[in-house]
Amino acid sequence: MSLLVVGSVAFDCLESPYGKVERAVGGAATYFAVAASFFAPVHLVAIVGDDFSKEDAAVFKGRPIDIEGLERTTGKTFFWSGRYSQNLNERVTLATELNCFAEFKPRLPEKYRNSKYVFLANIAPDLQRDVLHQVKVKPKIAAMDTMNYWIERTNAELRETLKHVDILMINDTETRELSSEHNLLLAAKHIFKMGPSTLVVKRGEYGAMMVDKHGIFCVPAFPLEEPHDPTGAGDSFAGGFMGYLASVGSKSDAFLRRAMVYGSVLGSFAVEQFGLDRLLQLKKPEIHGRARHFRKLTQFKL
Amino acid sequence: MSLLVVGSVAFDCLESPYGKVERAVGGAATYFAVAASFFAPVHLVAIVGDDFSKEDAAVFKGRPIDIEGLERTTGKTFFWSGRYSQNLNERVTLATELNCFAEFKPRLPEKYRNSKYVFLANIAPDLQRDVLHQVKVKPKIAAMDTMNYWIERTNAELRETLKHVDILMINDTETRELSSEHNLLLAAKHIFKMGPSTLVVKRGEYGAMMVDKHGIFCVPAFPLEEPHDPTGAGDSFAGGFMGYLASVGSKSDAFLRRAMVYGSVLGSFAVEQFGLDRLLQLKKPEIHGRARHFRKLTQFKL
Repeated sequence: MSLLVVGSVAFDCLESPYGKVERAVGGAATYFAVAASFFAPVHLVAIVGDDFSKEDAAVFKGRPIDIEGLERTTGKTFFWSGRYSQNLNERVTLATELNCFAEFKPRLPEKYRNSKYVFLANIAPDLQRDVLHQVKVKPKIAAMDTMNYWIERTNAELRETLKHVDILMINDTETRELSSEHNLLLAAKHIFKMGPSTLVVKRGEYGAMMVDKHGIFCVPAFPLEEPHDPTGAGDSFAGGFMGYLASVGSKSDAFLRRAMVYGSVLGSFAVEQFGLDRLLQLKKPEIHGRARHFRKLTQFKL
Repeated sequence: MSLLVVGSVAFDCLESPYGKVERAVGGAATYFAVAASFFAPVHLVAIVGDDFSKEDAAVFKGRPIDIEGLERTTGKTFFWSGRYSQNLNERVTLATELNCFAEFKPRLPEKYRNSKYVFLANIAPDLQRDVLHQVKVKPKIAAMDTMNYWIERTNAELRETLKHVDILMINDTETRELSSEHNLLLAAKHIFKMGPSTLVVKRGEYGAMMVDKHGIFCVPAFPLEEPHDPTGAGDSFAGGFMGYLASVGSKSDAFLRRAMVYGSVLGSFAVEQFGLDRLLQLKKPEIHGRARHFRKLTQFKL
């Protein structure tokens, strides 16, 4: 079943101890779409400027990613520039130029309006809600991301949007800020009262944790000797997670656990090289191979 | 098979947002011994002053813990006082009074000298080595802990001791400091060259990771809504880990994985209440119940 993603498509300037890329196609929706497309057809809604060339759009080509919803406008594409510290565990944002993204009003093409799986990447909560309104029938799973900026500045709007989603996927700092609870279990209980029935906490090098009515499920991050660039890891995780669920058409506990693993698999590949490079070369057997590796990493018998 | 532990027995003054205990029996060897005693008989080597009463020694009573090796001397017992921050993730040491522990020269009673499983808790590396020399036949598994103090001040002594142990169990900061490597996999490779063939990295609220020739195994920390006191969690982990291995008499991969789980189980109980309180009330079926809970927390099918 096809999967709708709404979010940013951007140019990134990335710098880490492993090198520098001046102008890489990035953005949350891009990472999500490429990662999810290994599992299910993706419908992309985003906006780019007239500096976004055919060559740039090639990242979506040859994959089941429909870009009818990729709006093209005059002006420049969203630009982000960041530098990572020696150990990749700290990031300095050097520039955020919203450009045409500041005027983004997501409009779903007619054929996107039946989407059963929806992912609202990190954009303004009122736009996220507007996207949900454009979907005709209540999706089987609506999931969303957000960030400290929206938690702090548009909290009421965010609360309103949260009422309409099933899964919230955020990092641990955001979880604590949104719930005003340090303990992640207490935070989850708080967040369930806001609407979502499942909380997925992304914890970077420590992996991810899912909390829902079935209980808690933890998956570690895949240990890598030389991660090169953490950009897009969380969005690739979300893409693997939602792509897998859309491919199986179920949200039972066993499938949600597997979705956590496939999310972690895609996130782990994303950080191996700069920007989208690794995901663009990735082959399906590698995904399944790493999922089995995750099993080796975590499984035990009593 | 019986298990030898050498380390500190102390009085702790503990303060956390959940309360305060003025004088609790603690120390690494105490937590280790109590945790390990659920699995195997323990031989304890430590030193206490004449302020350590019969009532204090009651924590070892009714358990398979032999305290012939608990030396009694004149003067005061090792005293440690610490306060935890609101979220228990920061600790301030208010006082460390070594007292009689400063003169500790571990002497193994004759019947301890055949120990097949040995754990050297965090004491001076030359003392750790001296203990190994007193063991007649090379142990099946010798494991040790250490801390930043020894890494920085007696590095050469520590390196010499590391040559003689199989398993090093330290936290992530210590792993990075000892190896001069931020990445834990590269750190493990470095440490393997120093002697140990297995590295267990204790990561607090993020669980634990084991690296050896079989690969990597990760186990999360058990999510608790209200941990009360993290004191002794790492030593209880070590106790559960080594106790389990001593009970099965094997160090194959499957057993090492289970040891990681039982270590995590004991560590998770330790933090539920102040000091040793929870471990002293703990029943064996609760241990197995939580181990099954760990399975639910981490297991998935592909």
